Amino acid sequence: TQCAGKKLTGLVAATFTPFTSQGEVNLSEIGPYIDYLKEKQGVNSIFVNGTTGEGMSLSVDERKLLAEDWCRKAKGKMEQVIVHVGCTSLKDSQELARHAVGIGADGIAVIAPSFFKPRSAESVRAYLQTVADVAPNVPFYYYHLPALTGVNVPASDLLEGIETLIPSFRGVKFSGSNLMDLGQCISRIQPHWSILYGVDEQLLAALALGAHGAVGSTYNYLGSHMNKLLSEFDSGNLVQARNLQFKMQELINHAVKVGFDVGVNKQLMNEVSGLQLGPPRLPILPCPQSHAIAIKQKYQHLFSVH
Amino acid sequence: TQCAGKKLTGLVAATFTPFTSQGEVNLSEIGPYIDYLKEKQGVNSIFVNGTTGEGMSLSVDERKLLAEDWCRKAKGKMEQVIVHVGCTSLKDSQELARHAVGIGADGIAVIAPSFFKPRSAESVRAYLQTVADVAPNVPFYYYHLPALTGVNVPASDLLEGIETLIPSFRGVKFSGSNLMDLGQCISRIQPHWSILYGVDEQLLAALALGAHGAVGSTYNYLGSHMNKLLSEFDSGNLVQARNLQFKMQELINHAVKVGFDVGVNKQLMNEVSGLQLGPPRLPILPCPQSHAIAIKQKYQHLFSVH
Amino acid sequence: TQCAGKKLTGLVAATFTPFTSQGEVNLSEIGPYIDYLKEKQGVNSIFVNGTTGEGMSLSVDERKLLAEDWCRKAKGKMEQVIVHVGCTSLKDSQELARHAVGIGADGIAVIAPSFFKPRSAESVRAYLQTVADVAPNVPFYYYHLPALTGVNVPASDLLEGIETLIPSFRGVKFSGSNLMDLGQCISRIQPHWSILYGVDEQLLAALALGAHGAVGSTYNYLGSHMNKLLSEFDSGNLVQARNLQFKMQELINHAVKVGFDVGVNKQLMNEVSGLQLGPPRLPILPCPQSHAIAIKQKYQHLFSVH
Amino acid sequence: TQCAGKKLTGLVAATFTPFTSQGEVNLSEIGPYIDYLKEKQGVNSIFVNGTTGEGMSLSVDERKLLAEDWCRKAKGKMEQVIVHVGCTSLKDSQELARHAVGIGADGIAVIAPSFFKPRSAESVRAYLQTVADVAPNVPFYYYHLPALTGVNVPASDLLEGIETLIPSFRGVKFSGSNLMDLGQCISRIQPHWSILYGVDEQLLAALALGAHGAVGSTYNYLGSHMNKLLSEFDSGNLVQARNLQFKMQELINHAVKVGFDVGVNKQLMNEVSGLQLGPPRLPILPCPQSHAIAIKQKYQHLFSVH
Repeated sequence: TQCAGKKLTGLVAATFTPFTSQGEVNLSEIGPYIDYLKEKQGVNSIFVNGTTGEGMSLSVDERKLLAEDWCRKAKGKMEQVIVHVGCTSLKDSQELARHAVGIGADGIAVIAPSFFKPRSAESVRAYLQTVADVAPNVPFYYYHLPALTGVNVPASDLLEGIETLIPSFRGVKFSGSNLMDLGQCISRIQPHWSILYGVDEQLLAALALGAHGAVGSTYNYLGSHMNKLLSEFDSGNLVQARNLQFKMQELINHAVKVGFDVGVNKQLMNEVSGLQLGPPRLPILPCPQSHAIAIKQKYQHLFSVH
Repeated sequence: TQCAGKKLTGLVAATFTPFTSQGEVNLSEIGPYIDYLKEKQGVNSIFVNGTTGEGMSLSVDERKLLAEDWCRKAKGKMEQVIVHVGCTSLKDSQELARHAVGIGADGIAVIAPSFFKPRSAESVRAYLQTVADVAPNVPFYYYHLPALTGVNVPASDLLEGIETLIPSFRGVKFSGSNLMDLGQCISRIQPHWSILYGVDEQLLAALALGAHGAVGSTYNYLGSHMNKLLSEFDSGNLVQARNLQFKMQELINHAVKVGFDVGVNKQLMNEVSGLQLGPPRLPILPCPQSHAIAIKQKYQHLFSVH
Repeated sequence: TQCAGKKLTGLVAATFTPFTSQGEVNLSEIGPYIDYLKEKQGVNSIFVNGTTGEGMSLSVDERKLLAEDWCRKAKGKMEQVIVHVGCTSLKDSQELARHAVGIGADGIAVIAPSFFKPRSAESVRAYLQTVADVAPNVPFYYYHLPALTGVNVPASDLLEGIETLIPSFRGVKFSGSNLMDLGQCISRIQPHWSILYGVDEQLLAALALGAHGAVGSTYNYLGSHMNKLLSEFDSGNLVQARNLQFKMQELINHAVKVGFDVGVNKQLMNEVSGLQLGPPRLPILPCPQSHAIAIKQKYQHLFSVH
Repeated sequence: TQCAGKKLTGLVAATFTPFTSQGEVNLSEIGPYIDYLKEKQGVNSIFVNGTTGEGMSLSVDERKLLAEDWCRKAKGKMEQVIVHVGCTSLKDSQELARHAVGIGADGIAVIAPSFFKPRSAESVRAYLQTVADVAPNVPFYYYHLPALTGVNVPASDLLEGIETLIPSFRGVKFSGSNLMDLGQCISRIQPHWSILYGVDEQLLAALALGAHGAVGSTYNYLGSHMNKLLSEFDSGNLVQARNLQFKMQELINHAVKVGFDVGVNKQLMNEVSGLQLGPPRLPILPCPQSHAIAIKQKYQHLFSVH
């Protein structure tokens, strides 16, 4: 087809959006960020303007600016740049999808609209189709995040007949904990589709069920360790893979107990990577540095980084 | 103060957004719509680009276009036009708030951001303040709709100290069913604030607790009957007020059982008013005409319209 | 009918279950408790072994023992004693219903079973009917508490045709915040039925919609003030009624913020009344005395008790 | 210790409770049921009076009668009989725990109390301890089922220090979908504890994370196929294990879509096994035979049973 693309696999970092300390988009940090992911974390694909990237808190113009810069600077360095174009307004999503074509994105993704929450697979599919229609030659991914969107239509229901409606359909970023639904997606897909798991702390479970890769925020700073998990799993070393997953869980479990949101996550990334990604944008409150440093110490303790 | 405004009371219709049959904004229907509300329903204030108006499904440009047209055409006919400027992006809300100043809106309203759901009164207040700051001379209302936003911070908590942060603060569109919270808002407000209730089917309960008015979608087609409810209540005729509320509940209860969302509501308005407001926008599916007509018949039966 | 009974109105205290400090049922406190309610609070009916009474945490034998003692000691003092016989086991509810006949209870009440949560009015009605059938001459009340049971079948749906299935049906203890559902119950009832509201902090709203009385835990220590609210409402003095409701809300709102559950509520009752009702039973943790005393001070401050 | 027991592993069938067509306990079917599980399904351990067994809908006397009969008839045939003794009443749970000692149960399990929902690990632990204390020599399991109980305390939090409070503690029946919590349980346990997974349709995911076995209702009729899944997993044949899991998911996914509850599940078991386990008890409605037969046909189609 015209929209072949390369099958998306492995770890995909859901990138944070760099802001200045005044809260404006800061493009100058994108280059170093891409280098960091590639060189220090071994991460070769990125998912931009998604939840981690606070896409919903950006204006359409900011999203375009960012998407363009990510695509341009990732060229030759990253395998794939997936641009998230979902929001609550269909028109805005269409505009962002059209823009993604022009900047050479390797794929676009759309989350279910979350203010008016569709209750049927039919209405979600109709919505996704209307976005996909304006960018028919770009691989299209559905971004399934029921806990945040409140849209509880099973992803496997959504997949029924979707290739007819959306010929550019290429897979799902599945960020849910219903693994029956995940399994039913995987067991029914076309060979060129990818099911990428998005709940980082239970990635190994999804791999056991056949997930082709993973998209998540923790791969920003745990990419090298989670790449090791992937390779242990591929080699059939379940015990080693499990130990890595358990360590990673211990970190997240700890973070959740002391307080963890996109703002904390972003500041943790700043502390671990040395990048200057700035604060989050309201309604997410900035994270006190000391709070992120304490989580970083847990990280270093668990993964023996000295 | 510079932002005195007139206290907002009585019924406020949350307007539908007129679309063409192709789903584009249809400004030509706004004039007749305003006349209908004033002349047939006795409704003298409107709340535009809110939930009923599918504000979240519109682009920023569409919202501006609509807000401007509503304000211009309502001049001299409506007492107040409140423009809802809330969305998930702070920047977009600010832009819409600035725009509302220019078009002479009588007030602006902001819903809590619903993708990243703030958990503390502090973060909601900080968000609202950042929007209000760019339009300091326009009366500001907080739009409280916890069932849809998932933001469960009590409105009465939010009000603590808000006049210091937002000098233009003038009240709450309270669309929740926690009437302890409603009561605690009412018992603590400044004299020039308004608490407007937004769950139409239990308006009488809110009046008993001292609500100053109501904002809702059903006042588009039940305004005259609900104005009667208000006047019966004001005259101390609780039994008559109750009977009107019960009839209205029976209508909505029936509609909910057979299927009721913004799309059905809009088509019901089309059938009752004769206006051509068009279909809803995705993700809301269009309502079959027969479905709306059946609900209209219940309406006519209950309210003896022949 | 054989099951006439007197229509249940006014305030009904949902009683706490007196325990010894070792957590065993303490019948000796029941007599003084009844006298306190009647003499100090002006409360003339009680609802025993309900949520406030930790009925679900008691064995069948304990519930029988308590119900019998409450009925015997209330004779000639209380107008009505309603015995709650609901639990998760149909057989146990039937046994308790049969027992209630023998002890001369003025009515029995049954909550929806909450472990296996029925999803249809049909299944809830079938369940209630099977209990009511064994005590056909005792007035029967449905206890609607969706927030705790997770059973979201509207009470007004449940009432459809219920008098045919349960000839002894006499009303609903409606402890929900959906006032459309409440109104639809009230607008459809038989003259000898009672709809008693159970969310104490928004009683005035329910009165406006026509509720016939109230069942709640706060009437144990706020009965006299809430009786005043009832009489102000009956006299058409809405403003005075509202002020009493607001004070009461301020107390509960404060309690909820500092921590409020049946254990705290019980200890507050101990502090206010001077009765020795003991601690709650696990899984409810005992309340530190200082915590209850702090809430009592708020109570005294609000209601000028010195 | 005095409470050594054998580590619980492999498949454990959560048994249905046999009723007569009149809804009374039917002990005569227990013998054939045990034989069926052992001979046809290769299942060697059972979990009785749990959710599948409608334990919450039984009286204490019925639960004792059943537990005794299961234990007696399973002797020499089943490896382990775990008796669920949880309910909403602490006293009843204690009585059932004492009784379980006398009948030689291999273990007891307790679900979190679900009417008053404890919010802290401390209160759940205190509750469990108070039950375990009366049966100190019987292996004790915590039954974690947050979706049904509404008790969302992570199981891994609960395990902290539990061996000190409950020396007889031996593990968790983990019926939740939070696999970070599952992983954190597994990574922290004592060698003689078992973590048994209870969401049958994602068993493979739990095995990947190190679960020691599984307790569920589907093992009643899918035991042989799921034993094959276990052995394929143990042999490192992930693809084969996955295919079995996908088939099983397809069955359950189908059943959920056409309607699936304990009543349907029980009738499906009747149809598949030929046993006469009777109808469920209210509030669960009986399942029309045709409905169960249709699901059975899907089962036969998927698993090629002719």
